[in-house]
Amino acid sequence: MTASSEGFASRMIVELVNTGSELMLGRVLNTHQQWLCRRLADLGHVVTRQVAVADSGTEIQQAVREALGRADLIITTGGLGPTSDDLTRELVADLLGKKLIENQAVLAHIEKRFARLKRPRPAKTSVETFVPEGALVFLNQFGTAPGLAVEVGEDGRWKMENGEKSPPPSVILHPPSSSRKKWLVMLPGPPRELRPMFDDSVVPLLKREFADEIFVCRTLRTTGIGESRVQEMVAAGLQPSVSRGLAVGYCARPGAVDVRLSAAGKGAEKIVRAGEAVVQKILGTNIFGFDDDEIENVVVRLLTEQKKTLALAESCTGGNIAHRVTNVPGASVVFLGGVVSYANSAKVKITGVRAETLRQHGAVSEAAAREMAVGAREKFGADFAIAVAGIAGPGGGTKDKPVGTVFVALASASGVDVKKMLNPWDRATFKEVTATQALAQLRTRMISA
Amino acid sequence: MTASSEGFASRMIVELVNTGSELMLGRVLNTHQQWLCRRLADLGHVVTRQVAVADSGTEIQQAVREALGRADLIITTGGLGPTSDDLTRELVADLLGKKLIENQAVLAHIEKRFARLKRPRPAKTSVETFVPEGALVFLNQFGTAPGLAVEVGEDGRWKMENGEKSPPPSVILHPPSSSRKKWLVMLPGPPRELRPMFDDSVVPLLKREFADEIFVCRTLRTTGIGESRVQEMVAAGLQPSVSRGLAVGYCARPGAVDVRLSAAGKGAEKIVRAGEAVVQKILGTNIFGFDDDEIENVVVRLLTEQKKTLALAESCTGGNIAHRVTNVPGASVVFLGGVVSYANSAKVKITGVRAETLRQHGAVSEAAAREMAVGAREKFGADFAIAVAGIAGPGGGTKDKPVGTVFVALASASGVDVKKMLNPWDRATFKEVTATQALAQLRTRMISA
Repeated sequence: MTASSEGFASRMIVELVNTGSELMLGRVLNTHQQWLCRRLADLGHVVTRQVAVADSGTEIQQAVREALGRADLIITTGGLGPTSDDLTRELVADLLGKKLIENQAVLAHIEKRFARLKRPRPAKTSVETFVPEGALVFLNQFGTAPGLAVEVGEDGRWKMENGEKSPPPSVILHPPSSSRKKWLVMLPGPPRELRPMFDDSVVPLLKREFADEIFVCRTLRTTGIGESRVQEMVAAGLQPSVSRGLAVGYCARPGAVDVRLSAAGKGAEKIVRAGEAVVQKILGTNIFGFDDDEIENVVVRLLTEQKKTLALAESCTGGNIAHRVTNVPGASVVFLGGVVSYANSAKVKITGVRAETLRQHGAVSEAAAREMAVGAREKFGADFAIAVAGIAGPGGGTKDKPVGTVFVALASASGVDVKKMLNPWDRATFKEVTATQALAQLRTRMISA
Repeated sequence: MTASSEGFASRMIVELVNTGSELMLGRVLNTHQQWLCRRLADLGHVVTRQVAVADSGTEIQQAVREALGRADLIITTGGLGPTSDDLTRELVADLLGKKLIENQAVLAHIEKRFARLKRPRPAKTSVETFVPEGALVFLNQFGTAPGLAVEVGEDGRWKMENGEKSPPPSVILHPPSSSRKKWLVMLPGPPRELRPMFDDSVVPLLKREFADEIFVCRTLRTTGIGESRVQEMVAAGLQPSVSRGLAVGYCARPGAVDVRLSAAGKGAEKIVRAGEAVVQKILGTNIFGFDDDEIENVVVRLLTEQKKTLALAESCTGGNIAHRVTNVPGASVVFLGGVVSYANSAKVKITGVRAETLRQHGAVSEAAAREMAVGAREKFGADFAIAVAGIAGPGGGTKDKPVGTVFVALASASGVDVKKMLNPWDRATFKEVTATQALAQLRTRMISA
């Protein structure tokens, strides 16, 4: 485990409850956990517990009841749709002793949506228009089911917007003497609906309801240095900031290391800025981006700004660099294309490597990578070309060139640079790490030009 | 939500406890949940609850204590390594009132490992040689920290291998009258260590300890038909099997739909086989594989068996097809290479599309896709070539060709087929779905040839 323990601002207890039988059968990956935990941590609210249960009435009610007994903020995901296994809305209303009543704004929103699609509104969407009495409603910009938020009052009763109070039948709460607020937020399951709703509606709610303290967080993303070394390099320099309240965390990713700086309370902004300046000074150009930046986004941004174009010649990364670059919307402006030359014949015919080079040095060699880069740059007529030649494994290693050996060549108007690396990981990790390194090599060239 | 509720064999209650501060900060994705839930479901043990907590003593002990109070099988992940935030071993021993004692087999295993690597054994690994007294030990074939399993006895006490019993200080258990077994299994965090350990050591333990009933499960993976339609097509035919105890579940994935058939008890094998025969008859060649099969693995297998080669010309999928094909170990034997022709100039220069075709029909057209496939097949000298031309979005759509429009061409010795599809999803989903459809088109051709 590589995360350093960090001090956090918020004394708030936050729990996630993810519902879905597909989760428990292992059919889908729970991406909500990472996404919401990351967003909440960056707001200063570290999730203390995440629970996933099936779409079963007993399980959902028990999980929510337990969370209400411990947490100040509970976020549930899923179970708000129109089908028979979408149970959260009903179960929470029942748990809190509330009626479901039809909400006209939700009804109008759903009807408008189907009118725009020129399709009749399916009858089953009616259930989505019913919300627990007094709940805050978040209209769904990318779907039909609204998000919901209810405040559970300090006195152990559910606080109604209209002032009405009714005893929640089975919720164990903080002692009545506590003056803490307690919110239960329910979000729809599909990520394309949940994510904008969280950013647009939940973040403002949290800022309003739980902003007792200022919290500032900044993640600096680095490449080219290992995690232990990053830590060694910056720890001493950060010490003065740490003594003034800066929390520092490190996280190793494939080919990259994140440094997360955060602080709370008065002066937090200043403390984090001072820490950032220290890290910037020590790690310099190894810092490729901030917060949500990915290396491919940074590279596409640089190419766009500098009005340059890119071509690729990939062997062992097998198209992963092209795949990542083309994940960036707008990449088509700067990315001309690439060649995946897996077979030697393809290296010769398509990328323009000389057969003689392959015979003399082999396909995994500095010379071959160099010729691939030069060939790709010429064929596509690009400003930059990256070429990668290596051994992804599990087979194909030799004593001189073990599995993980890789040459990354970068061709530009000013010539070709080739770097040799050893990435002795499993096949999938090898491809990720090598792709990151190759893109980082281009970035370094572009910012130093 | 798309999972149908299913009846399950096992009355066993299974819970997962994932530990790791990185999980709670949202820095890493919890892939253990999906992997272990899937494996356990296929063994007939559906996980009822999954919990993630930080590397904190209080949180881990509370989560394990609660799970011990409810479940027959508890699996923890993480916290077994040599660093200061690896707490699980100590906390569980403490929770169960057990001493940690040095295990000679673990010590020998770790020493051998470092001797093989010709490196001195780091002092910090010593902590990994200490295990709770009487625990089963799983040596780690891909790391140092062993896995551990302890049985908590029927009488509410921890059952010791040597017969010694001592009262667990704070574990709430099933009533003493219950004759249920209760196991706590602790696995290391890194997936490359956890996965083989689960398959090699935990599965045999579960089969020995919890095999009260036979359980049979088979997943049939399909492409080319939507989820609702698959369900409509097979439901009536499966009814006789369902009435004899078959459980049926459906799961939609990008470009694919899974049909999961399971049954328990005497005759389970026969019931599942009968169900499978029905689905095979109805869905026929739409079934591309079983259980863990991915379409790219199936395609590489078919190409290898038929001694054929493949080339690619990708536009809107941006290298994703090549990336997926090259994720399959051994792909280099059959995959010659591909071109990612993002710019029109690249389509003309590298793939051999005629400029005239682009002028007349546009880059996203049946004619362009056809010429890309023919060009790639010739250039690479491959038996088959797949070409993809479409609009991934978010920009670039027109009234005639909206975002999501895509042409997939397949060239072989017998000519070229082009299919037009509409995949109006977000950019990432578009790429996944289109790649799956393109590979499925090749598979269909190969099995019908």
